[in-house]
Amino acid sequence: MSLRVGVVGASGYTGAELLRLIAGHPGIEPVVATSREFAGEDIVSVYPNLAAYAGRPFDAVDPSRLEELDLVFLALPHGASMTLGAQLAAAGTRVVDLSADFRLSEADAYPEWFGSEHTAPEWLGKWAYGLPELHRDEIKGHQAVANPGCYPTAALLALAPLVREGLIETDSIVVSAASGVSGAGRGTGAGVHFSHVDTNFKAYSVTGHKHTPEIEQELAKLSGSEVRITFVPHLVPMPRGLLATCTARLATGADPQRVAEAQVSAYAAEPFVRVTQSPPETKYTTGSNTCHVWATADRRTGRAIAIAAIDNLGKGAAGQAIQNANLMLGLPETLGLPAEGVYP
Amino acid sequence: MSLRVGVVGASGYTGAELLRLIAGHPGIEPVVATSREFAGEDIVSVYPNLAAYAGRPFDAVDPSRLEELDLVFLALPHGASMTLGAQLAAAGTRVVDLSADFRLSEADAYPEWFGSEHTAPEWLGKWAYGLPELHRDEIKGHQAVANPGCYPTAALLALAPLVREGLIETDSIVVSAASGVSGAGRGTGAGVHFSHVDTNFKAYSVTGHKHTPEIEQELAKLSGSEVRITFVPHLVPMPRGLLATCTARLATGADPQRVAEAQVSAYAAEPFVRVTQSPPETKYTTGSNTCHVWATADRRTGRAIAIAAIDNLGKGAAGQAIQNANLMLGLPETLGLPAEGVYP
Amino acid sequence: MSLRVGVVGASGYTGAELLRLIAGHPGIEPVVATSREFAGEDIVSVYPNLAAYAGRPFDAVDPSRLEELDLVFLALPHGASMTLGAQLAAAGTRVVDLSADFRLSEADAYPEWFGSEHTAPEWLGKWAYGLPELHRDEIKGHQAVANPGCYPTAALLALAPLVREGLIETDSIVVSAASGVSGAGRGTGAGVHFSHVDTNFKAYSVTGHKHTPEIEQELAKLSGSEVRITFVPHLVPMPRGLLATCTARLATGADPQRVAEAQVSAYAAEPFVRVTQSPPETKYTTGSNTCHVWATADRRTGRAIAIAAIDNLGKGAAGQAIQNANLMLGLPETLGLPAEGVYP
Amino acid sequence: MSLRVGVVGASGYTGAELLRLIAGHPGIEPVVATSREFAGEDIVSVYPNLAAYAGRPFDAVDPSRLEELDLVFLALPHGASMTLGAQLAAAGTRVVDLSADFRLSEADAYPEWFGSEHTAPEWLGKWAYGLPELHRDEIKGHQAVANPGCYPTAALLALAPLVREGLIETDSIVVSAASGVSGAGRGTGAGVHFSHVDTNFKAYSVTGHKHTPEIEQELAKLSGSEVRITFVPHLVPMPRGLLATCTARLATGADPQRVAEAQVSAYAAEPFVRVTQSPPETKYTTGSNTCHVWATADRRTGRAIAIAAIDNLGKGAAGQAIQNANLMLGLPETLGLPAEGVYP
Repeated sequence: MSLRVGVVGASGYTGAELLRLIAGHPGIEPVVATSREFAGEDIVSVYPNLAAYAGRPFDAVDPSRLEELDLVFLALPHGASMTLGAQLAAAGTRVVDLSADFRLSEADAYPEWFGSEHTAPEWLGKWAYGLPELHRDEIKGHQAVANPGCYPTAALLALAPLVREGLIETDSIVVSAASGVSGAGRGTGAGVHFSHVDTNFKAYSVTGHKHTPEIEQELAKLSGSEVRITFVPHLVPMPRGLLATCTARLATGADPQRVAEAQVSAYAAEPFVRVTQSPPETKYTTGSNTCHVWATADRRTGRAIAIAAIDNLGKGAAGQAIQNANLMLGLPETLGLPAEGVYP
Repeated sequence: MSLRVGVVGASGYTGAELLRLIAGHPGIEPVVATSREFAGEDIVSVYPNLAAYAGRPFDAVDPSRLEELDLVFLALPHGASMTLGAQLAAAGTRVVDLSADFRLSEADAYPEWFGSEHTAPEWLGKWAYGLPELHRDEIKGHQAVANPGCYPTAALLALAPLVREGLIETDSIVVSAASGVSGAGRGTGAGVHFSHVDTNFKAYSVTGHKHTPEIEQELAKLSGSEVRITFVPHLVPMPRGLLATCTARLATGADPQRVAEAQVSAYAAEPFVRVTQSPPETKYTTGSNTCHVWATADRRTGRAIAIAAIDNLGKGAAGQAIQNANLMLGLPETLGLPAEGVYP
Repeated sequence: MSLRVGVVGASGYTGAELLRLIAGHPGIEPVVATSREFAGEDIVSVYPNLAAYAGRPFDAVDPSRLEELDLVFLALPHGASMTLGAQLAAAGTRVVDLSADFRLSEADAYPEWFGSEHTAPEWLGKWAYGLPELHRDEIKGHQAVANPGCYPTAALLALAPLVREGLIETDSIVVSAASGVSGAGRGTGAGVHFSHVDTNFKAYSVTGHKHTPEIEQELAKLSGSEVRITFVPHLVPMPRGLLATCTARLATGADPQRVAEAQVSAYAAEPFVRVTQSPPETKYTTGSNTCHVWATADRRTGRAIAIAAIDNLGKGAAGQAIQNANLMLGLPETLGLPAEGVYP
Repeated sequence: MSLRVGVVGASGYTGAELLRLIAGHPGIEPVVATSREFAGEDIVSVYPNLAAYAGRPFDAVDPSRLEELDLVFLALPHGASMTLGAQLAAAGTRVVDLSADFRLSEADAYPEWFGSEHTAPEWLGKWAYGLPELHRDEIKGHQAVANPGCYPTAALLALAPLVREGLIETDSIVVSAASGVSGAGRGTGAGVHFSHVDTNFKAYSVTGHKHTPEIEQELAKLSGSEVRITFVPHLVPMPRGLLATCTARLATGADPQRVAEAQVSAYAAEPFVRVTQSPPETKYTTGSNTCHVWATADRRTGRAIAIAAIDNLGKGAAGQAIQNANLMLGLPETLGLPAEGVYP
């Protein structure tokens, strides 16, 4: 018998990816799928790819109905989950929030990075940070999980083994990352017009991307001291896929050979992280919940380079949310999650 | 308990797509996966997306081992399946051939369209043509099935209801179709160099594409008389996806309104064909076994226009092969087959 | 000394392409460049590629100033040129209109195909149709020229030699064409979102594209009798480029060999039409004013296939407008126009 | 009267781009265009975009004929220019070499970075390094100029003003750059297959890219001491375009505000470098010889970020070679060079 879940914000890209994954998941059933913009309209009229939902409309949001579900995914824009997330958490409903609203433990970070105060600051620090490879046990025991951002997922999976083993100097970390365009959501505008984006490459949010404090918070937990990184995101002309290229000075006395080995040791038993033989490529992860990582030390310059590739909508969003839900619901962690990417 | 299958030619694009789909199929098990080029090499070193095959090498071809399997998929280049296909059929092994080698019933067609004689002409006409929407019962009872080409799958699913009901004049059919680049296979060359193909669009094989006689043969079965079509394929700068845009004069006395209705009637109960509200788009089918069809009549010009979209590697190749295998093995037809496309 | 020209609607894609071409044109000078949306803003802040315009803002529209110029290009949306075009024509100012507003000679066609009455019907039929390869002498003597649409440019250059020589039956013409996304303009929306368009292919406006009557009107002039075509446009995931694949039954008694020869004869002396050895590819025309054409006869089916490739913003819009302006101003026809495409 | 030039290796991407630019250049004439692979074949049969060369075949290499020209461009693979370059230089013929063969002044660097000894080491250090913005006067007086690599052009134009003014610590420079696929040349293989590259993003040559010593050599000249950088190149699914994102710690006492100003000061009078208002995008430079640069200081982390965008075949190769040739031949520096990119 399937557990009953809901997706709030199901008509955004991450919401629709949740619906796609849930359609192929044998343990959960999508009882609610809300959309403010498309409530009452057929799901397949908005997303003709979602064949399993033929004949079924998007729902309006009804919090009382959500509270009765086994688990609720919130796939809303940043800021929009604060109230509903707090309400569901207070009601004891299991909830996975895919926004940044409950990821940071310090309330001060919200006005600094997101431009406005948090409206439910009493919950900050009480949600688990849903990166299973770092916080699996904590996630299992929590009813409220903040699903990581796409850039943090990749950067942290690349860097965590190196930081944990003290192989790099954390004040020298530079993360140059690049994402496919779906990372910016369904919203339209000149910046996502095909004719502008295709055969184009650029950096954006150069010193102020909202994922910066999230990466720093988690690296600080691993290193035991404050971390400030330089994070420069870029936009790649492709719909999906995200690569984080991280560099840092090797710590004094660190064994360069250990840089690559640290990843191998860390992820040997992980079902959704593969250490690759050569620098990872985003395309192999498309549609899957798998992260590919790779690292090397450049003895000539004394720097480590650690790289991770994911599907920003998979392991970077909806896939990881399902992985967290599996852990929270006591299901097998890999249930219903494709490890195989769609290639080519 | 899983049935034991083999994939011959598993390192080509269609072979690798078969491996991907089999990894997510609960009823069959990939006991053999051969590759002439990569025998002995790890599958994931060639296809890093195929996580389920980690630690497992490609096999060399061993016909006697293949004969003992429950079913063999042949994913070889045109011409290369003739001998092995005939051998497996003679041995009574279930076989789905993804090449054109057993699709045509007339031996003469091979020198004309493929440039050389068929080496096992005694088998021609004895294999079922594996388009379940047209030949489901025949496929169920056959041990040897010729899986349709990608263009024929789309063109036939678009046109079959119109031809069957006599709505169009079959001597006026023009099929203008377009495929993503994976349709041309893994082989390298100037014609598939990224810098050449990207932001480029062209027609190719303008009067001599090998899929022409296959479309004509099946339309002839439906109409009861010989059919000759004009078929112009094009190359689209995208990895996957295929669209067939078919036009034909309305038959004298045909009800224009019936053009759209014929598709709706024909596919109401089909699990993998959806009639769309507007002209179909290839992207909604990516990674799935679903075909989207749509048709209209242009009263001003007296022509019908019927369009179909598929993933050329899904319903156009590997997905349809699994669908056929399910039918042949007595499994539920939809088992292990994603109906939902990966979007965006 | 340069002649003084103006571009009205200079912030659209065709307007900006006019500015780009004028920057490299030694005989004309862009005295006015208007934009309703961006008047007063720096041109390079909107189009950072237009280095030559650094420090110069877009102008507001001032008809009296336009009347004093040597020539005005109108690059406005369909419908928006009627009033200003008529006003400039009445004032005796040379004008090239890139919209459809003065292309059709029958006033009835506007409500039928464009949804509203023409507001200056007295001018219809008095503008030259600006396809130099068909109407060069007429263009030279005219002060008001209607620049052809992108699809008509390609379809007509492919078909004109065959129709003129009576090689095909004009009631059997099917034009299946495909355009890059810039053909739809700068306007934003879900339909041109990168994540939707990339790796996607579809037909659109299947029986009602606004370019249909324009193609029919010009083919009728060539054949001497009314022509109705089936025209199915498609959208290709590329910024620029347009291919028209035209098929038609060979006329009774027509020499199949003449199909290819007719194009060769027609275009031997044309500076901007090249007959290619194999089916043309859009990419070779990018950024240029060149059209590549090719044709063949399929004796098996008795049909001719004629194909043309252009840059929809070059020969399909701004390039052709400059070519017309050169003819109208008495300049060398090729002045300032790149024949060489940017490849790869 | 035009000066007579030759292009050796004219069938590669940079060679063909030289031919395209020369076709539009009023001061030079392409007397020789060699190709080992295509000698005797029509240029337009290999590059149908090069309309100006219709009817003209590629030449075989004839050194004595080259020596009589006013200037020779060598567009050969790395290593292949050593002999011919030295021969032409010895003969007193003006030569611009687009390979790395004469860029480095230390002979030791060749076995270390290119895998084999230099065969004409006596010439090293005697060729000018052809980055006009840094070495204009030197180029004017030289007959032999080594045209910079694409990555060095972008990285140096981004960083030079900051290094020259001592604003950053040169031991902390990380260059994370990304190039379109034409940077890898016309050679075919699985790595440039469209189906593999499209919708894919990856790092490559992570610690050993051949452009590394070139960037370090030029930065050392500017800073006055040895420089070692971490350089990580990436491949973007687009045919052209290159972005270099450079980060470095601000030097002690450096004024953060000066970071952006340094670029503005440095390039105010440069015809082919534009300082942009926001992070540059590669697409605006397509087909042009223009470089867009931008820089900022991140006070939170104490790092500078400097970014440059170019067309790798334009300012990154053929365009810059023409710019150097103009300087060497005493022509106006901007003659025949498009500053305007083709957009969209």
